[in-house]
This record gives sequence, structure tokens and C-alpha cells, in this order.
Amino acid sequence: MVKIIPLGGSDRVTKNLFVYEYQDEQLIVDCGIGFPEQEMLGVDLLIPDVSYLVKNPKKIHGIVLTHGHDDHIAGLPYILPQLGQVPIFASKLTAGFVKDTLADFKIAAQVEIIKETDQLELGSFKIEPIHVTHSVPDSFHLAIHTPAGLIYHGSDFKFDLTPVDGWSSNFQKIAQLGNQGVLCLLSDCLRVERPGFSLSESTLKDNFTREIRKSKGRFIVTTISSNLHRLQQAVDVAVSFGRKIAFVGRSMEKNIQTASQLGFFRLPKKMIINKKKINDFPAHQVAVMIAGSQGQTNSSLVRAANNQHPFIRFGSGDRVIFSSDPIPGNEQSVHRTIDQLLRLGTDVVYSEVTEDLHVSGHASQGDLKLLIELLKPQYLIPIGGSFRHLHFYRRLAQEMGYQKNQTFILRDGEAIEFDQAGKTQIKKAVELKDIFVDGSRIGDVGPVVLADRQKLAQDGIVIIAVPFNQQNQQPVGEPEVISRGFVFMKTSGRLIEEIKTQIKTHYAQKVLDMAKFRNQIETDIYSLLLSETGRKPLILCVLVKV
Amino acid sequence: MVKIIPLGGSDRVTKNLFVYEYQDEQLIVDCGIGFPEQEMLGVDLLIPDVSYLVKNPKKIHGIVLTHGHDDHIAGLPYILPQLGQVPIFASKLTAGFVKDTLADFKIAAQVEIIKETDQLELGSFKIEPIHVTHSVPDSFHLAIHTPAGLIYHGSDFKFDLTPVDGWSSNFQKIAQLGNQGVLCLLSDCLRVERPGFSLSESTLKDNFTREIRKSKGRFIVTTISSNLHRLQQAVDVAVSFGRKIAFVGRSMEKNIQTASQLGFFRLPKKMIINKKKINDFPAHQVAVMIAGSQGQTNSSLVRAANNQHPFIRFGSGDRVIFSSDPIPGNEQSVHRTIDQLLRLGTDVVYSEVTEDLHVSGHASQGDLKLLIELLKPQYLIPIGGSFRHLHFYRRLAQEMGYQKNQTFILRDGEAIEFDQAGKTQIKKAVELKDIFVDGSRIGDVGPVVLADRQKLAQDGIVIIAVPFNQQNQQPVGEPEVISRGFVFMKTSGRLIEEIKTQIKTHYAQKVLDMAKFRNQIETDIYSLLLSETGRKPLILCVLVKV
Repeated sequence: MVKIIPLGGSDRVTKNLFVYEYQDEQLIVDCGIGFPEQEMLGVDLLIPDVSYLVKNPKKIHGIVLTHGHDDHIAGLPYILPQLGQVPIFASKLTAGFVKDTLADFKIAAQVEIIKETDQLELGSFKIEPIHVTHSVPDSFHLAIHTPAGLIYHGSDFKFDLTPVDGWSSNFQKIAQLGNQGVLCLLSDCLRVERPGFSLSESTLKDNFTREIRKSKGRFIVTTISSNLHRLQQAVDVAVSFGRKIAFVGRSMEKNIQTASQLGFFRLPKKMIINKKKINDFPAHQVAVMIAGSQGQTNSSLVRAANNQHPFIRFGSGDRVIFSSDPIPGNEQSVHRTIDQLLRLGTDVVYSEVTEDLHVSGHASQGDLKLLIELLKPQYLIPIGGSFRHLHFYRRLAQEMGYQKNQTFILRDGEAIEFDQAGKTQIKKAVELKDIFVDGSRIGDVGPVVLADRQKLAQDGIVIIAVPFNQQNQQPVGEPEVISRGFVFMKTSGRLIEEIKTQIKTHYAQKVLDMAKFRNQIETDIYSLLLSETGRKPLILCVLVKV
Repeated sequence: MVKIIPLGGSDRVTKNLFVYEYQDEQLIVDCGIGFPEQEMLGVDLLIPDVSYLVKNPKKIHGIVLTHGHDDHIAGLPYILPQLGQVPIFASKLTAGFVKDTLADFKIAAQVEIIKETDQLELGSFKIEPIHVTHSVPDSFHLAIHTPAGLIYHGSDFKFDLTPVDGWSSNFQKIAQLGNQGVLCLLSDCLRVERPGFSLSESTLKDNFTREIRKSKGRFIVTTISSNLHRLQQAVDVAVSFGRKIAFVGRSMEKNIQTASQLGFFRLPKKMIINKKKINDFPAHQVAVMIAGSQGQTNSSLVRAANNQHPFIRFGSGDRVIFSSDPIPGNEQSVHRTIDQLLRLGTDVVYSEVTEDLHVSGHASQGDLKLLIELLKPQYLIPIGGSFRHLHFYRRLAQEMGYQKNQTFILRDGEAIEFDQAGKTQIKKAVELKDIFVDGSRIGDVGPVVLADRQKLAQDGIVIIAVPFNQQNQQPVGEPEVISRGFVFMKTSGRLIEEIKTQIKTHYAQKVLDMAKFRNQIETDIYSLLLSETGRKPLILCVLVKV
């Protein structure tokens, strides 16, 4: 019996971690972080819940990574310490990014580079990597030969027939696997809502050329820092116009450095200038590749837009190209950044104005159908999408003649089992929790803390400190009332006095049960404040023993 | 000297309120609310700061409203009480919506209906309303004749040449005004990023027909509740397929009621059913118009999607049409609603799947240019946009041959002055504050409270209560430490003990200066917690006198 258990990345887009299991053996595919939703206040990131792996220890042969995006690799620094020594297998570039990430956390690990021609034998699993095109170079799909049959792990991809580096997806190998017979295809589905094929990355070069011609001052490109082919094209265009190039932003600089060392970025060394020297050159001789395309606070672009960057002053004639779409939830910060840049007098080109300066790295309906057609799998499992994407992927398969029950919609923590006869079933395997990373701590923020943060964010807090005499259990002296995020204390004297008066009415009774006494005061003041202000602050009564 | 002073709605999209001023006379155009940005935590809405009107009282002749959207009228219940008795002038439908709004707040006011054929004389201002098409019926532009010349107040509109109610914008009158000579055009600019003309609202009818044919169960349409032409078309299509119709959602039901009473909605009375009766009819004989297209918590649609609505159970075969685009910032809640609906087994059609089920009510570049061409104004002022929209509107005018300095970009609170000779200048007129409505109170939440809410939302709060002896100024007894939204108290005993130990180190000194003592403890614990957790909770030390 072979099982696949997504601990992340099945019914959510990010936090990818898939467990392949056969008897007492396990194989892990990807180990990514997730990004907090709007209501997960203060949370830095999410990581997969691997309690299943830790509580039922089996032989983990290794972690195989598909590509170098954070939602597939950046969970490693948090997860590896929980699993002990497990070897990691990845393509050359992905391995380079992983080593950078682990070095940041001072974590030593065994990272092995695998090539497309390699066959990786990990216990009962035999793995063949397949090169595919995506928005980060050197990406893999994985053909996983298991005792139940061949499972094709088709993580994030699109079929780019004119890739920037000339290195197409390995259609021959995919077709050959299809000939051998594929039991199950796990497929990217994030862009299943779009008809047709995704556009080639290389369509952008002409558009960058158009934009650089319009750049009277600096030619400034911002995009996701791992999109090396995008950056390569912007750099190539800049070079062809004789411009010096500066990279700005920690992630941008690091990624370019690693990629060029590993041969995945052609760096025109003579044309590169240090970001601190940008102002030493005439604006029309400079191109800037800058991080912050999502309007992230503290990113280089946002600081430059607010004129708060230590080295960079953008101004009239400069032209900023947003070569990216806002990730849902980031629209306001992106728009604010655009407004700020325009206020500086720079020109700005972005998706609402021109749609041809960004293409998706994910497969549209055409790409998805072609992959199915090449593989002709017996079963299908869409991965890496929200429920709507999984749903529409199933429908896509139905349009191609698949039965509804040939496509499985797995929720994270559910296991799909394949027996040797090719029979399948879905079982609940693991109860998963959201594991939040906040500051330097993992997992100590949970639903209670988040619910409190939401209340605090909404209407603030009112703190009531009541001194009481331990001997005779009698409240004594003056209660202190302090609020934060509720009303402005300085101008709310009357309300504060009202609260104190109300608290004093409780002084007549003894404090026999502290919790009960606190609760009475809290309930009482809650009602008072709701009727006075229409707000529901968190009310906290502290009994101070004296 | 005639002045225009936007107190809201100039460099922001919402919260529209424009003051026209001549000597000691004033005229107000629109009185809307604004919507809080993501970081304005807990704020319900914003209203214009009218301190300028209150502090420098002049004769306010009246408030003229352009159309019935909340960002143009819903500020009235908050602003009217500050201004005293001021008459309100509006079209029939706008007046109906205003009366509904004021009734909710139990505010009496003089609301006068004006027709397109009326000429409104308000002191030195003579106002001619001009019918224009927009996403709410019975919308006006205003030709305002002033002693300095004719100012055309071109609020939200588009030129719909096939409007659903057959009532086109009054091109004749606009062209005639152009012939008379227009000093200045204030123009909607929100959609200036889009080339061409905005699509006609009536293009949606065929698309609704296509969707109802695909609806095996209920035909469910969600859109902004004030978009009566949208709803009319959905209702007409439903009727033509013999379906009963239910309206669900407070705003939806109220708007339909008012609009049909005033003759702006053709309600097929025999086909209307009460929302409580929806389940009494076979699903394929029912159409539902439901509020909640932005995924608002507590909206009818969201409750139905979560199966928590008292009367409504959607399921397999039902088809939900999102006839709207997510407002930036609402994407996550809209997507979550879609996911939930699909989980119920309903079909869902939304903008990522089909773009032809929503059209904008705002003017694109074509509409904007046509308005300029018809009016040939001497000066231009884009309104109702963010900075990028104002910027691109100026550029649009330049493409049409206007000089850069003929387009004025006004910030809220700046005044543009026109003298009789047609000379203009911009001056800072008013220092404006953000006025927040939170609960039942207006204006008592300000930057300090918001900054606290942001800190609280991010990392919570740690409260330290230290009892101290007033006589000898000595800290006594045990400090109490409580946290909310920081760490889960129950599992953080060790950390709490550490905090207490640290506080005790301060017990050696007397409390000579309470503020200083508190501050020392707060700084100390802040450092401790930052190094232990990497978080920066709000630390609040309360000294309790005993």
C-alpha cells in the first residue's frame, strides 16, 4: 500500500510538503513556508505541521525538492531540526538557494545535487527528475516509481516553448513516462481558471525594450527576486542600451550572486555597479533592478518611493516598471507605492496601465491539458491551489473524458492510498494544526493568541487594576484604569472616571473567589463601554494582592 | 474670487465633500463617507473633516448631491448635526436614499428634490443639474454658474449609449454648456488607466441569460446593492425564465423597496417571494438577488456560504454569479467566499473565470476625453481618484493639447481660487485630519489609538501590575504579569516567571518618580522579551497605590 499525505500544499497554495509512504519508509517532497492570511495578525509565516512524521517515526529516506521558491523550500530551517539528519536532494540552483537559506539559520545539512539524468533510489522509491519551465530556473517535476505504480509529482510549472535560457521542458521524457503507464498525476492547478496556454517568459524582452526607450532617466525594474529569467531579460536589454546596472535589495542581490556563481545568470560584470554608486552616473546611463514589487514595508523600492533609502533618490525622468501582479491582499500597498513614486515625478508602468510586463509562471488550462494528455494517468490529484482551483481542475479533467471519481480532491492531512491492484481510497490521516512562526519562536502562537490580537486590533484594551487586602479579602484603595487602542486617554477623563465609579460599586463585597470577582467587574465594564461607545474592547481586571 | 475647497474626494477616491465659496457664501457638493485602509484597525468608516466650515461660519446655502452612493451621501448623518439646518438638494432617487439613511439615524432634515429641468438659485451660485449615466440611476453632473464663470462638477459617471432605462446622459445640454464657455471642469478620473470607452451596462443582459440557462438549480446573483440597473437586468432575465425572485440582505431589500416606490425599479410583484420562502419552491424555479459580493463578514452571502444563514441553504445545481469585481483589499474575503460556496456543491462564476459579468460605472479614457471635448473647459481638475489617477488624467489632457499647468492636482484641504479675470492659484486652505467613526463615537480615535492598535495587533500586550506603598514609596508584594495576544499564558509559565524575577530587581529602589519607575520596568522587560521571543509587545506597567 502506497500512501500520499499532503501535510501542506494540497488545498492551500503554499506551505508545500508531501509525504510518500510505503510500509515503514517515507519520502518527502518539498518543504515550504506559508504566508499568513490577513486575519493572522502579527504572524510572520506558517510552516507545515510535521507532528505526523515525528510521532510515527519511520525511515525518512530524504527530502526531494522540486524548485527554489520559498513555499517549497523555506520551511527547511524550521522542519529539519524536528526530523534529525535527513538528506536533501535538489537541482543545482535549488540546492544553491537552500544552502543560502540554511546558512542564514546556521543549520548544517546534507544537500545533494541531482541532475535530470540521475535516477535516485531511495528505498522502495525510485525517482526520476524531469526538467520543466517555471518562473524560477532549474525546476523539476518528479517521476516517482513506487511499488503501487508510477506517480508523477507535477509541481509548479508551465510549458514555455521559447524559454529564456533555451532549456525547454523535457517533453520526450514526459511522453515516455506516459507510455510506461502512469498511476497518478499530481498537478499544479493554480491557474486553471485561465483558458489557453500561459505566455512565454521571453515575450517580455520586446516590452522591456519598448519601456527602456521611453526611459529618459533611470530604467528601473521591480519583480519577484527569484524570477531570474525576468531579471536576465531586463539586464540584457539594459546592456544592449549601454546602461550600467545596479541590483538593490537583500534578496535580489543574494539571488543574483548565487545564480551567477552557479551559471544560471549571465552577469555582464563590466556593466555592474554598486548600488551606492547609482547617483555617480547620469540617470540615463543607469538601470536598476530593485526588490519590493509587492509594496512590502521596508523593501528597497518602498523606501526609495518614500525618499527614505540611504543611497537612492528617484525623480523626474526615471521610469519604474512593475513586472509583476499584486498578490491578492497586497493591492493597497502596491497602489500606495505607485502613488508615492508618481509623486516623486517618476514615470510608473504597472499592470492596470499595461498588462504585457508580466506573465505567470503557472500552467493555464492548455498547459494542464497537455500534461494530462502526455501522461494519460489513471488518476489525477490537483495540488497547490485553493479549493476553487482543485474544483475547476476536476472539471477540466472531466472535459477531457475523465470520470469525476478519477480526480481526487485531497485536503491537507488526508491520505490517499493505492494498493498493488491499483485500488484507491482517501482516509483522514493526520489532524493538522496551523503552526505559526512569530519572531524567533515557533508554534507558541495559536488560536487563543490570534483571537486576542483580533480583539485588541479592533477595539483595544482596558486594564483595570484593583488592589485588595489578602488578609480580609477586601478591595482597597483606588482602582487604576488604563486603556490602549480604545480611546485616547488624555481626552477621555470623564469616561475613565465613570469606569472607576462603576468599579467602586463592587468594593462592598469581599473577594471570595478571585476569578468570579474579576469576571463580574469585566462583564460590568464591558456593558458600560458598549453602551457608551459602541465598542467592545478587551477588558482585563487584575487583582493586585497587598 | 471664487474658491473650490475639497474637504474630501480630491486626492482620495471616497469621502467626497467639495466646498464652493464666494465672499461670505458657501455651497457644498456631496457629503460622503470614506472606507478605512487596511492599517486603520477597528475603524468603521471615515467622514470629512468639516472644521473649516464650523470654525469660519459663512452662509451655507445648501448641500447638493450628485448621486446616491455612500461615498457621496452617507456622511450626512454625521456632518449635518455639525452644520445646523442646511437644506439638501438631490435627484428623486438620491433623495430617497438620503431619507432612508437619515431615518436610520433619526435625523430630521430638509431634503428637496431637483429635476434636470430645474435651475437652482443658491445665493450667487446658479446650479443646473445634468443627467448622466452611472452605476446608480438618477445621477447628476452639476453646472455651477459662479461670479468667476461656469464650473462643471463632473462627478462619477460614464457615457452609456444604451442605458438599461433608456435614459442617456444629456449630451445636448453638456454641448450647450461647452458653447457658453466653461471655466473649469472637475472630472471623475478613477478609470483613467483604461483605454477606450467603458462598456454599456446593458451588455450584461445576454450574459445573465447565458448563465441562467446553465443554472440547474437556483440562479443567484450578487452585486453592489445600489446597482439597480444590474439587478433590474438579473430580475428581468429571471422573470423571462419564469423564476420566482427573492431579495436577500438588508441593504439589497431596502434599496429595491425605495427604488421601486420611486419608480426606478420595475418590480414584477407576482414573481417576488419572501426570502423565508425560498426553500418552499423547487430550486430551478427560483432566482435570488443577494448582498455580500465583497465577501463582507456577516453579509447574507457569506453566511449562506458558511451554511449559517437562517433561511438559506445553497447546494448542488445552484449557480452563484459574482456580478462585481473585488474592491482592492477584499480579494481574500471574496476568494474565501467562492471557495466555501464551491464546497457546498454550488457552481460559482466570478471575475477570474469570466470577465463579462461586470462592467464598471466609471468613465474610461474615451468617455473622459469626450466630456472634455464637449465642454472645452479652460481648466481641468481631476477628482475622486488616488494620486496615480490624477496624474494620468493630467497626461490625458496633455495628449488632447492642454498645457500641463491647465490641469490642477488638488490635495484635500487645498483651495483653488478663480478671480473674475479668470486667473487661478492654489493655496493651502485647511489643515485636515482623518475623522474616524468607531462604534457610536466620532473623532475620538486618532493616530495614537491607531498606533496602539497596530502594536497590539502585531505582538499583543504584557501588563505588569506593581503594588507600591504610598507612605514609604516602596514597591511591595508580588507583581502581577498578564499577557494577551503575546504568548499563550498557560504554556508560558517559565517566561512569566522570568519577567517577574526581572521586575523584582527594581524593588530595591524607592518609587520617587512614578513615570520614571514605570518606564524603567517597561524598557527592561521590552529588552528581555525581544531577546527571548523576537517580538515587541506593548508593555504596560501599572503602579497600584496601597
